[in-house]
Amino acid sequence: MSEIIVQPSFKWQRQDGQDIKVKDWICPIAEISEEPQVVVLGVPLSRSSISASAASEFPNAFRKSWELFTTYYIDEQVDIRALRVADIGDVKMHTTDILQCHHNIRDAMQEVMARHPQSFYVSIGGDHSITAPLVRALSEGKRVGILQFDTHLDLRDLSNGPSNGTPIRQLLEAGVVQGEDVYNIGLHGFYNAPSLIEAAKHYGVNMITLKQMRRKGAQQQIAEVMAELQDKVDFVYVTVDIDVLDIAYAPGVPASTPGGMRTDELFDLLYEVGKYDAVRAMDFVCIDPQRDTSELQTVKAVTYAFLTALCSRYIHLK
Amino acid sequence: MSEIIVQPSFKWQRQDGQDIKVKDWICPIAEISEEPQVVVLGVPLSRSSISASAASEFPNAFRKSWELFTTYYIDEQVDIRALRVADIGDVKMHTTDILQCHHNIRDAMQEVMARHPQSFYVSIGGDHSITAPLVRALSEGKRVGILQFDTHLDLRDLSNGPSNGTPIRQLLEAGVVQGEDVYNIGLHGFYNAPSLIEAAKHYGVNMITLKQMRRKGAQQQIAEVMAELQDKVDFVYVTVDIDVLDIAYAPGVPASTPGGMRTDELFDLLYEVGKYDAVRAMDFVCIDPQRDTSELQTVKAVTYAFLTALCSRYIHLK
Amino acid sequence: MSEIIVQPSFKWQRQDGQDIKVKDWICPIAEISEEPQVVVLGVPLSRSSISASAASEFPNAFRKSWELFTTYYIDEQVDIRALRVADIGDVKMHTTDILQCHHNIRDAMQEVMARHPQSFYVSIGGDHSITAPLVRALSEGKRVGILQFDTHLDLRDLSNGPSNGTPIRQLLEAGVVQGEDVYNIGLHGFYNAPSLIEAAKHYGVNMITLKQMRRKGAQQQIAEVMAELQDKVDFVYVTVDIDVLDIAYAPGVPASTPGGMRTDELFDLLYEVGKYDAVRAMDFVCIDPQRDTSELQTVKAVTYAFLTALCSRYIHLK
Amino acid sequence: MSEIIVQPSFKWQRQDGQDIKVKDWICPIAEISEEPQVVVLGVPLSRSSISASAASEFPNAFRKSWELFTTYYIDEQVDIRALRVADIGDVKMHTTDILQCHHNIRDAMQEVMARHPQSFYVSIGGDHSITAPLVRALSEGKRVGILQFDTHLDLRDLSNGPSNGTPIRQLLEAGVVQGEDVYNIGLHGFYNAPSLIEAAKHYGVNMITLKQMRRKGAQQQIAEVMAELQDKVDFVYVTVDIDVLDIAYAPGVPASTPGGMRTDELFDLLYEVGKYDAVRAMDFVCIDPQRDTSELQTVKAVTYAFLTALCSRYIHLK
Amino acid sequence: MSEIIVQPSFKWQRQDGQDIKVKDWICPIAEISEEPQVVVLGVPLSRSSISASAASEFPNAFRKSWELFTTYYIDEQVDIRALRVADIGDVKMHTTDILQCHHNIRDAMQEVMARHPQSFYVSIGGDHSITAPLVRALSEGKRVGILQFDTHLDLRDLSNGPSNGTPIRQLLEAGVVQGEDVYNIGLHGFYNAPSLIEAAKHYGVNMITLKQMRRKGAQQQIAEVMAELQDKVDFVYVTVDIDVLDIAYAPGVPASTPGGMRTDELFDLLYEVGKYDAVRAMDFVCIDPQRDTSELQTVKAVTYAFLTALCSRYIHLK
Amino acid sequence: MSEIIVQPSFKWQRQDGQDIKVKDWICPIAEISEEPQVVVLGVPLSRSSISASAASEFPNAFRKSWELFTTYYIDEQVDIRALRVADIGDVKMHTTDILQCHHNIRDAMQEVMARHPQSFYVSIGGDHSITAPLVRALSEGKRVGILQFDTHLDLRDLSNGPSNGTPIRQLLEAGVVQGEDVYNIGLHGFYNAPSLIEAAKHYGVNMITLKQMRRKGAQQQIAEVMAELQDKVDFVYVTVDIDVLDIAYAPGVPASTPGGMRTDELFDLLYEVGKYDAVRAMDFVCIDPQRDTSELQTVKAVTYAFLTALCSRYIHLK
Ligand SMILES: [Ca+2]
Ligand SMILES: [Ca+2]
Ligand SMILES: [Ca+2]
Ligand SMILES: [Ca+2]
Ligand SMILES: [Ca+2]
Ligand SMILES: [Ca+2]
Ligand SMILES: [Ca+2]
Ligand SMILES: [Ca+2]
Ligand SMILES: [Ca+2]
Ligand SMILES: [Ca+2]
Ligand SMILES: [Ca+2]
Ligand SMILES: [Ca+2]
Repeated sequence: MSEIIVQPSFKWQRQDGQDIKVKDWICPIAEISEEPQVVVLGVPLSRSSISASAASEFPNAFRKSWELFTTYYIDEQVDIRALRVADIGDVKMHTTDILQCHHNIRDAMQEVMARHPQSFYVSIGGDHSITAPLVRALSEGKRVGILQFDTHLDLRDLSNGPSNGTPIRQLLEAGVVQGEDVYNIGLHGFYNAPSLIEAAKHYGVNMITLKQMRRKGAQQQIAEVMAELQDKVDFVYVTVDIDVLDIAYAPGVPASTPGGMRTDELFDLLYEVGKYDAVRAMDFVCIDPQRDTSELQTVKAVTYAFLTALCSRYIHLK
Repeated sequence: MSEIIVQPSFKWQRQDGQDIKVKDWICPIAEISEEPQVVVLGVPLSRSSISASAASEFPNAFRKSWELFTTYYIDEQVDIRALRVADIGDVKMHTTDILQCHHNIRDAMQEVMARHPQSFYVSIGGDHSITAPLVRALSEGKRVGILQFDTHLDLRDLSNGPSNGTPIRQLLEAGVVQGEDVYNIGLHGFYNAPSLIEAAKHYGVNMITLKQMRRKGAQQQIAEVMAELQDKVDFVYVTVDIDVLDIAYAPGVPASTPGGMRTDELFDLLYEVGKYDAVRAMDFVCIDPQRDTSELQTVKAVTYAFLTALCSRYIHLK
Repeated sequence: MSEIIVQPSFKWQRQDGQDIKVKDWICPIAEISEEPQVVVLGVPLSRSSISASAASEFPNAFRKSWELFTTYYIDEQVDIRALRVADIGDVKMHTTDILQCHHNIRDAMQEVMARHPQSFYVSIGGDHSITAPLVRALSEGKRVGILQFDTHLDLRDLSNGPSNGTPIRQLLEAGVVQGEDVYNIGLHGFYNAPSLIEAAKHYGVNMITLKQMRRKGAQQQIAEVMAELQDKVDFVYVTVDIDVLDIAYAPGVPASTPGGMRTDELFDLLYEVGKYDAVRAMDFVCIDPQRDTSELQTVKAVTYAFLTALCSRYIHLK
Repeated sequence: MSEIIVQPSFKWQRQDGQDIKVKDWICPIAEISEEPQVVVLGVPLSRSSISASAASEFPNAFRKSWELFTTYYIDEQVDIRALRVADIGDVKMHTTDILQCHHNIRDAMQEVMARHPQSFYVSIGGDHSITAPLVRALSEGKRVGILQFDTHLDLRDLSNGPSNGTPIRQLLEAGVVQGEDVYNIGLHGFYNAPSLIEAAKHYGVNMITLKQMRRKGAQQQIAEVMAELQDKVDFVYVTVDIDVLDIAYAPGVPASTPGGMRTDELFDLLYEVGKYDAVRAMDFVCIDPQRDTSELQTVKAVTYAFLTALCSRYIHLK
Repeated sequence: MSEIIVQPSFKWQRQDGQDIKVKDWICPIAEISEEPQVVVLGVPLSRSSISASAASEFPNAFRKSWELFTTYYIDEQVDIRALRVADIGDVKMHTTDILQCHHNIRDAMQEVMARHPQSFYVSIGGDHSITAPLVRALSEGKRVGILQFDTHLDLRDLSNGPSNGTPIRQLLEAGVVQGEDVYNIGLHGFYNAPSLIEAAKHYGVNMITLKQMRRKGAQQQIAEVMAELQDKVDFVYVTVDIDVLDIAYAPGVPASTPGGMRTDELFDLLYEVGKYDAVRAMDFVCIDPQRDTSELQTVKAVTYAFLTALCSRYIHLK
Repeated sequence: MSEIIVQPSFKWQRQDGQDIKVKDWICPIAEISEEPQVVVLGVPLSRSSISASAASEFPNAFRKSWELFTTYYIDEQVDIRALRVADIGDVKMHTTDILQCHHNIRDAMQEVMARHPQSFYVSIGGDHSITAPLVRALSEGKRVGILQFDTHLDLRDLSNGPSNGTPIRQLLEAGVVQGEDVYNIGLHGFYNAPSLIEAAKHYGVNMITLKQMRRKGAQQQIAEVMAELQDKVDFVYVTVDIDVLDIAYAPGVPASTPGGMRTDELFDLLYEVGKYDAVRAMDFVCIDPQRDTSELQTVKAVTYAFLTALCSRYIHLK
């Protein structure tokens, strides 16, 4: 197997039958017989986080939550088990060389693309610094748009290295992405410093606050953003920083905040996102399982969000 | 007193005066002088729960919360102290014979009915398996409708015994209730397996998702359901599985989920339910006080819901 | 310095630059060069609380949260750093003489007014008993209106002393405030006893339930209340009892309740309040940091609310 | 009944039989037929605590724990059910007048003594300020010795009122107790300020550190202290400040500390104390149930300590 | 494979090399090439617990902890990886028929013995009710001694069914074990009712309190007990009820108590136990992972205890 | 000031008087008038930790705990306020370049030594990786011994970079320290892999298990180790990895374990260490405040340990 992608540390005992769980459905890459339609890649890096974070433990926390969900989505009366989803494992990380980690992430994504060129890619962070190398790998020769759900702009200057505060800035500075192709939905409150606003304006990043989104509604908001993006880019990368959610709905992030999005709003937004073939990849970042409640409120929310996005893709794009 | 109904393990020191609390109002059955209009029955059984549950501790947790609420409902400017509510105690349980427990529940409900034939009955679980024997006792010679608030259909097949996953199936298979007379409101997400959907369709159970309810609004949704039910049945049994609530509002259940109902929505629904004389009994199930927050978020929510339902009955049906 | 106002026990290392935090902006009174526009006063008293409370620890918990917020409000694209806000310290308290504490609070507020007559005053409790001496100090020779956000009426009779259950009653009985000038927004549920309702009616206190406010919307509700108040009073005092929030949004209060307000609703209400020059002072009370979650959900909510009110003032009244 | 002693807010449903729990054994005063040998008095005052404390909730937390213990002590193979223990209720408290509370405590203890002159008295705090009025009541016309288990000397000067930092100082200054008759066992670490040491030396208080006690062993240490005390005083009052325990064993106190006593050491010490008829009364103070673990570690430790002391009395003094 | 033993729900990705973890060493039964010397059997039953318990989740919690320990025991400078330990899976359980569960446990143990007659058997509970069917299976045709570490005697009468309060009584009543062959070490405090003491005396069960054990020391205590047992029985079954530990060391049990054993004492006792070839099987019961701390204090303690026992066996009996 | 040492983010309001707290005693370097005898340096680095760690937040958590301790040590009846202790601030860190962080640590320590050559140095981690650069700075031209209190050997090979698993290996490989000059006290259990043992033997590191230390006692153990060390080295560096403590005493570390040291044992050991002038510097590492209990059990333990060491130095070496 790969040098740069390692097996998850545990494997579900998968079971057949009418009533399966997500754990019985998502398949280790080595055991899937047909070409997967969706590839899940763990990216367990969080020593690049500005504030202390155990987001590196989220890929496994995510896998463990698979026994809590079925493959049947009752809101749309659909069973998504026919969608072929493979778990390809985790990017190998170095303990102290963060740049090496970022290189490994880029190389791993390239390897995933090379092996599964037609798949939809879902990366499970890790902190937000992983988005820069992931988009680098995906964007080669393409114009890529970014649809970001975040409380923060992630446009810090790079003087202190590539952290979870810088991924969008890195991509803009490197010319990998253009500012006008970045749409950030969910901004609110007193969490972004002036220099980030200035950078956003300088690069032309599209800032859409949570209140603006609420006035439009999820469906129209995504429709408008995707209409604009589809005219400009070859494909769209969706990045979901879970700190976009309100602290009442997602305490398990390094910087949980009041004034944020509700989970039902995020689920609706991702359901809309799932309708667009232009979306080629997505990630979920900045979930710290050590800060989650004992009932796993945040981890469960992410798995629900992930399933909602896949379910919508299955319904609309199969 | 009864062989099958035992006194609660503690008793409030009740006080008189203008400003009483719920603890001063709800009366031990032995101390009430007039016929009660509402009888509260504790059903402390949860060894029948599929996943580990301490819902057996909820009847007492519920009673302890009575000191946190007054009898005055400021939203409607009404004091409900004139409603005569009696606490009749708990169904006696066996430590290891679950079928015996279920028989005791049925027998206890029959005894309650025999002694207080005109009352409204509120059972405090316990897990959802208690609903089957309760409805059995209540339905003799009557056509009964079920209005269920739940994240799950509770239609598992009976091969593994009568658990909290099977009560509706039990009642349907036994012909105690007809599928068309069951309305489940609040379904959402990835929590029901295909065989349950199949069973729901086979029996004609009415599935109303949370999103559908939200589009209609609580008032219209309940009006429509009750209009249909009143045409068909002799009376309606309301069963509230607290896991219908979102994990942000009710973490203290064995299977808390994101994507669920808010407490204010549940309160509105139960206020509507309280308007109908056809509703003869209700239960609250699957609250696990050991998983609740230190501030008793879930326990308090159930007591609020209970009071809202009674308050509405008092306003509309006195 | 003052005998009755003491320095906070710690001081932030304040930093300059483009990207400052609230900790770098709010200035110890001794270090501010120009006259402050806003004065923040800590009132660390909670032994006057009916139920056990560590609200006395909130002023410092509030100050500690200042490193979690920037001065830039992205919803309105405004940086509020030009607003001069000074932290004047805490009212000195006696360990066992609660009346002395209340006198100190009144004297401290008088001293603040004497030294900074043009400022806007924000008091950080402490429990709700502090509002009575604060309003006493502020109201001399003036007709003052009270805009209260609370789950409770705070109209208990005074037979058991001046506690967090009595501040409004104290002000009414003493003729400091008139009942018709008190507007309580956010009332809900089963938390006020009949004698309080009776007192509210007796004094003519305006009771606006959370449901009524929701039907009107924050903007119209505040517009109506302020229109009425501005006709009657010289200035308005705003008091925010954080237990007005739902337990899902603010568990860290001595009596958290289901059925309450969401944080986004409170933020909207305070944004509206910030538009009125007639509002001269406000307080935030009844936050118990020892009951907050490990992620500081309640503390962060109050700081966000405080910033929202100031931000709106800055936008509309500068 | 008394004006100054109020019934507990709840009552256990007591049961007979061979296998009873402590809840079935300790009897409400109104229901006991013979003169009690031990009287338990709740003293729910903690607004007199220097740091915020919910110790006022401990008397009820203590009563609730009675269902977790039997009357049989397996270490000595003895059943203590024959000891007649009565729960006389709680001292009535004022919400804001702390001096009134202290007067009530003194009056209540006098009333208890008047009604049950031959009993052993156990007071359940509350914070340590309660010890001063309790000893005042008990000591009239007698020379009383104090055996204190504490991390602190409680010798603060009285300039800030009678708090949980001052009870011993109050008794010494008032001449109620003599310094040489006070023995404090369990002192350790960096928790007493120099002025307290100075006061201890000035008054001749006997300071015995935890390390000194450990070198002697519980049996010899108590034997020596009691030998000295019995020569000097008429009777001995034992006061147990639960913060004497290590934070690993008793986190639920306002100021838990590392370096403290283990529970087994405290149990051994109280077993020795129970051997002496000269001990006429004891109290347990400064337990804050809101800071305890979810498994009630601290509350259970106090109940075990209480039972151990009574058990030893029963064995040695019956 | 077996009808009555099911695969664990997940499998570790095992790794080779010099530095392995316990997860890399304990082998699924299907993957072990040589005959195992130790067989681990999960027994996920806790609906038979008197008080609510999630001990059914412990077998998997135990397996998950395997990544936290190496195979090298530094106290004795020994690597135990050469010991062949196989994980055979979990006994299949019924959801509501507890007697069926107990039959399955007995049958599963018989099957294990039939397939691996020379192994040492370690059963991982589950609650203490599992010990009765396990010993039944093991004792056929043999005289078996029981060495129990417990806070409780587990000698309740059987009128309420075979629960975690009855296993020793069941074995005595059925004549499977003789009272004189049962040694309970660790008894303390006020946790056993008189009828249990009476039963212990009636049957001649040997009661050794924690204090008695401490006076002897672990080595001598076990030496004495084993000397007596080896004279009488064919083999010894060791049952470790984790509630024998103090609440400071093992909060994660249904009934944690102060006054119990320290973990280092339990480890020493099990190290001594490991020296005796007469010990043929052991179990660990009554661990409730849902009540454990977030740092898994109790779960880790059990795994350490398990490893200590195996390590001692490896050193002394290989 | 320095480029490489930054001010702490907050400053205590220090107070004079007889009864001061540690916060009033330890002095910011800029405010101390005489040459400090002890210099405290914060080293907020933990992205170098193998497992996720928020130890970077410990220097500030340590400073915050200073208000909980006085300067008087009652065990020895000594006030240590005459000892001049200065807080010099924190080493400046880079967000993503861990090697740069390590260089900064070394440079900062060199700067501290240059400015305060006669002081005793206490570094507050951070994770254990900081010990390597600290010792590098201190050891120039000297033979340095290391006295380590740890559950782990920290001798991992360097293939994955300089982490908290490698500091001792780094120093040995680089020849900065000799294996025979390293003494590790407190080793226990199943937490060190064979390659580490092999490395320890290869380099001649002295391994002293917790059990061995307990048999000797703290005083004799330290006396023996220091006698050996003083013969060999120029000075001794003491490094305290708080994970040496048992999980019951110090849950707030990245890898808390059962079977560890009690706090009173650690305090005794550090008291002995404080007697030796040969000890020139020490550090405390691997405390993760985010994993600590709400009562700050681990943080308080470290502050107590720090004070004990300084107190002993003050008594024996002043
Ligand atoms: Ca973010
Ligand atoms: Ca981000
Ligand atoms: Ca359900
Ligand atoms: Ca259900
Ligand atoms: Ca209120
Ligand atoms: Ca209020
Ligand atoms: Ca104390
Ligand atoms: Ca004290
Ligand atoms: Ca037990
Ligand atoms: Ca047992
Ligand atoms: Ca370590
Ligand atoms: Ca280490």
